[in-house]
Amino acid sequence: MGVLGASGYAGRELCALVARHPGAELMFACANEQRGATARFGNRSVTFLAPDDAPLDRAQLVFSALPHGASRRWVDAAHAAGAKVVDLSADLRPGNGGGGSAVPYGLTELAREQVRAASVVANPGCYPTAVLLALLPLLVRGLIAPGGCVTVVAASGVTGAGITPRQDLMFAEVSGDYRPYALGNTHRHLAEMRAVMRALDCDADLVFTPHLLPVARGILATITVPLVEPLAEPLGLWRSHYASEPFVEITGDVPALRDVVHRNVARITAHMAAGVRAPTVVVVAAIDNLVKGAAGQAVQNGNLLVGLDEAMGLPA
Amino acid sequence: MGVLGASGYAGRELCALVARHPGAELMFACANEQRGATARFGNRSVTFLAPDDAPLDRAQLVFSALPHGASRRWVDAAHAAGAKVVDLSADLRPGNGGGGSAVPYGLTELAREQVRAASVVANPGCYPTAVLLALLPLLVRGLIAPGGCVTVVAASGVTGAGITPRQDLMFAEVSGDYRPYALGNTHRHLAEMRAVMRALDCDADLVFTPHLLPVARGILATITVPLVEPLAEPLGLWRSHYASEPFVEITGDVPALRDVVHRNVARITAHMAAGVRAPTVVVVAAIDNLVKGAAGQAVQNGNLLVGLDEAMGLPA
Amino acid sequence: MGVLGASGYAGRELCALVARHPGAELMFACANEQRGATARFGNRSVTFLAPDDAPLDRAQLVFSALPHGASRRWVDAAHAAGAKVVDLSADLRPGNGGGGSAVPYGLTELAREQVRAASVVANPGCYPTAVLLALLPLLVRGLIAPGGCVTVVAASGVTGAGITPRQDLMFAEVSGDYRPYALGNTHRHLAEMRAVMRALDCDADLVFTPHLLPVARGILATITVPLVEPLAEPLGLWRSHYASEPFVEITGDVPALRDVVHRNVARITAHMAAGVRAPTVVVVAAIDNLVKGAAGQAVQNGNLLVGLDEAMGLPA
Amino acid sequence: MGVLGASGYAGRELCALVARHPGAELMFACANEQRGATARFGNRSVTFLAPDDAPLDRAQLVFSALPHGASRRWVDAAHAAGAKVVDLSADLRPGNGGGGSAVPYGLTELAREQVRAASVVANPGCYPTAVLLALLPLLVRGLIAPGGCVTVVAASGVTGAGITPRQDLMFAEVSGDYRPYALGNTHRHLAEMRAVMRALDCDADLVFTPHLLPVARGILATITVPLVEPLAEPLGLWRSHYASEPFVEITGDVPALRDVVHRNVARITAHMAAGVRAPTVVVVAAIDNLVKGAAGQAVQNGNLLVGLDEAMGLPA
Repeated sequence: MGVLGASGYAGRELCALVARHPGAELMFACANEQRGATARFGNRSVTFLAPDDAPLDRAQLVFSALPHGASRRWVDAAHAAGAKVVDLSADLRPGNGGGGSAVPYGLTELAREQVRAASVVANPGCYPTAVLLALLPLLVRGLIAPGGCVTVVAASGVTGAGITPRQDLMFAEVSGDYRPYALGNTHRHLAEMRAVMRALDCDADLVFTPHLLPVARGILATITVPLVEPLAEPLGLWRSHYASEPFVEITGDVPALRDVVHRNVARITAHMAAGVRAPTVVVVAAIDNLVKGAAGQAVQNGNLLVGLDEAMGLPA
Repeated sequence: MGVLGASGYAGRELCALVARHPGAELMFACANEQRGATARFGNRSVTFLAPDDAPLDRAQLVFSALPHGASRRWVDAAHAAGAKVVDLSADLRPGNGGGGSAVPYGLTELAREQVRAASVVANPGCYPTAVLLALLPLLVRGLIAPGGCVTVVAASGVTGAGITPRQDLMFAEVSGDYRPYALGNTHRHLAEMRAVMRALDCDADLVFTPHLLPVARGILATITVPLVEPLAEPLGLWRSHYASEPFVEITGDVPALRDVVHRNVARITAHMAAGVRAPTVVVVAAIDNLVKGAAGQAVQNGNLLVGLDEAMGLPA
Repeated sequence: MGVLGASGYAGRELCALVARHPGAELMFACANEQRGATARFGNRSVTFLAPDDAPLDRAQLVFSALPHGASRRWVDAAHAAGAKVVDLSADLRPGNGGGGSAVPYGLTELAREQVRAASVVANPGCYPTAVLLALLPLLVRGLIAPGGCVTVVAASGVTGAGITPRQDLMFAEVSGDYRPYALGNTHRHLAEMRAVMRALDCDADLVFTPHLLPVARGILATITVPLVEPLAEPLGLWRSHYASEPFVEITGDVPALRDVVHRNVARITAHMAAGVRAPTVVVVAAIDNLVKGAAGQAVQNGNLLVGLDEAMGLPA
Repeated sequence: MGVLGASGYAGRELCALVARHPGAELMFACANEQRGATARFGNRSVTFLAPDDAPLDRAQLVFSALPHGASRRWVDAAHAAGAKVVDLSADLRPGNGGGGSAVPYGLTELAREQVRAASVVANPGCYPTAVLLALLPLLVRGLIAPGGCVTVVAASGVTGAGITPRQDLMFAEVSGDYRPYALGNTHRHLAEMRAVMRALDCDADLVFTPHLLPVARGILATITVPLVEPLAEPLGLWRSHYASEPFVEITGDVPALRDVVHRNVARITAHMAAGVRAPTVVVVAAIDNLVKGAAGQAVQNGNLLVGLDEAMGLPA
């Protein structure tokens, strides 16, 4: 397996996962600006290549963690060279102009069979992974009130903002702080979430407000959902929906970042809101943005693409 | 001025504010379990008294930062002794059984004149301060959609959970974590917020989900509000509403905890949500939970009670 | 294998290591105050027992992470029941009254053969592990200046202070802070370090000043050592000394907590001090206080006690 | 008063201090790369100028917080224009090539009278401020053992490393970490500390190892000092030495960063090391690197330069 875009946070996490994957070998890792530099992943020492020097034709599977806009070209090149590809960028995702492609959207718990049959997969964004896994039990049953408004308030650790040095991401600025961004429903992940909701016949509106947390890793999404009818046992619904999923944990306790970091799981709870007239459920989902929200889910999809056990090499 | 309940976080903040207040003197500070111990507030060294030993009859103004349930008795005692009183506990607030009392709810920006005329004031809770200041411009104009649902997701620093040692509040547990609590719309501040909304003729539902942040101080509330009609210029509405308020800042930028900690201000922004059918505004308010959300607002109210300038001794 | 004192930070880490140990089974975990409660370690769900209910006679190996003073009695009981024992408390360590015992001091890299032959081992303290591993290459070669003074300034994450709730360990107190403790050379780990130095024929004085860091995990010790002669190549000395050790990493770069947390390694560097007259080396060692400084080293010793590969089940 | 280099952390702190200084006015603030941008300091809104546009001839006092190497030229220009100058850079400090100048080294507690008589002052570095204030009572009395070695291990918050974005200073890298730097006695502040020690007739060696802390602000230096003779009452010595100093606090408790941040104080303790043969004292000093270690001390010196009360405008 090979990794393009190996110097970012998701790329580094991918290299680490592939390096200790019992069914794979880290054949190459590309990082254009750091080409020639050496990094350690587990027991494996890797020298970064320029993408142009990557032996794309010799890898069975290539992960692209290149930036949005720069990835599609390399996905095509790897695919043309005969590799299967997991694209972690937004380039091929629905709602990003990639919706017209034949490439499945790799929310594994929703699209396992399409992924297994595909040769290229668009790996979901970090926020959409948390939000859609939280909503799936409602979406597939048509339980969200038509015409209603789903409110998502989510918070992410700073690795979600990338590894490029920025003054607003320095320790002295982030420590002790908490703030929203992309106010007014303007985050680019909205299109991706809406596209999946519409594909599952949900016409509800979506208001999404992300925040920056003073932690390194993790996303927690708090979702308030108007329903067509009250749920007698919300936890039971989520538990039965995800009964056979190895990477989704339903908890009666509160999901917390500490319980999910460095693990390829989504941890979810759901509670009916007391004291309101219209039936409303509050669903909370926590993931590690770099694992289940990026590199881990990519390995899940990659395992399926090449016929390995889906859970192989993943920290649950 | 005297302080009851001086050993908690709000009580300590009160002592510090009163000690450097140019128009006041810290006459006594009570902390029953630490009676006899000495603490420094600015240049002032204070020996904690047992409440029974407090010279209530000699203070013009008494602040009670005693725990909920334990405060009312001392408020009555101080009042009977001739002092004016600001009660920081929930005991006298609307929605907590205190609604029937003649005591005004000291959200200063809403109830300035009642406070000025009163002898006892119920100081608002920290979350209600942030949420109600954010909503006031909509509430007083009847702009919230009748029958709609206002969704509040708020996050607080750990001082909001009090100073009593608890394993879940230790550094090793909170660091790197973020989690909700009081899921299912069960937080006791809900009654307080609903009572004020109803008093302002708003019948909307309220879903409130608080979270614990890995920071020492600060509350940030992210509020999604269905409207009767779109707001052409939301910032303009908030700016005009609060034009003459010294302790409310309206910003076109994002409110952030770092901009409000150790200051007696609420920092608020408002943006219409794009891409939804029903007109919806996202309002965000940030305060320091111990200052504008507790001790600072208490001093604001105390200044009014005794005829001083409202802003005296307060860090803006 | 069984664990006594399973509810503290070291005990929990032990349970997690044993639960995923490929050559062991977590037979029981005792935590007197939490008896009856259930905890998850990896895929394993464990119900805590009272120590009195532990089947000591059926475990091949017992770890005691009981508090200092309370441990020796249970070590004796487990031993009498036929188990081999690793004691993580200070009770049997040299310099703590345990020096007269026949129990080897399990600094594995120093005492591997004695541990292999023993049935009970005293697991080193967290600070002594970092400091002694840093000093061993000098100690065994007699390179520390006789009559000189070795200065150790060390800093530990808050898990080093235990899990019992204390106000000074709460997030709001530790965040943003850094402070020394046990000033004046009064820390109880001094006796343990001195005893090992003396056993290795070093008569130098030791001044040790520990500090509390605002991090959850990790110890970093900065050690200034007067030498009998300059070292031409300090890194080379440490590298050759530890050439065959799987859990000691010598680096020309700076040791950092981030490189050692959650790993059973000590990461060490050494540099001659420029611009001073007497030859002096600055040695820095970093470990995870809960892994290499406690539970990981205990498993290393336990593996040797029962004849398993020393590295089995340990995260390097 | 004017500020050159106003966009760095020390420059911003200076602007904030000058803006609320009761005896001064913030006449201009220069920040070349941000010229034209506006910043708020207290109630004052300031537009950054290019240094070339600064009205140096109209300011009574100019602070230069320009980078090392770039400052001296502007100090000369401001001085030539008639202003008194406090230079926060290293350019004019002893041991940095500035030792030959007639410019006093503005460790105020040591050189108050020279500062008062001067027109230009070299403001001490942050580490030297903490270390030299800790050592002064020993230095002026000749109590440090001749030929001995003073060991300084110090730790600084990240603002000490400047405001320019760097990957190693980003939140995701610093959070949970702690590490040394400038190993092998190579930090550039050594020359400055040595020059002052020599000027006070101390010939002891100095080994200085700085560390990076996961906090925004503060320096804590832990100093182990060989003495000519034991001190019967170390605290008494420090207390009497600093009895009349408004900005030095001697404590029998442990100095901690939390007690000094945002304040213009050094907080110091001293304890004889137990259990060693040669008399040795451990001195610990804590300061805010941006206040007492930079901008606050600069204002102290500036006040003296222009004949104001030394403490005016400073948060003690």
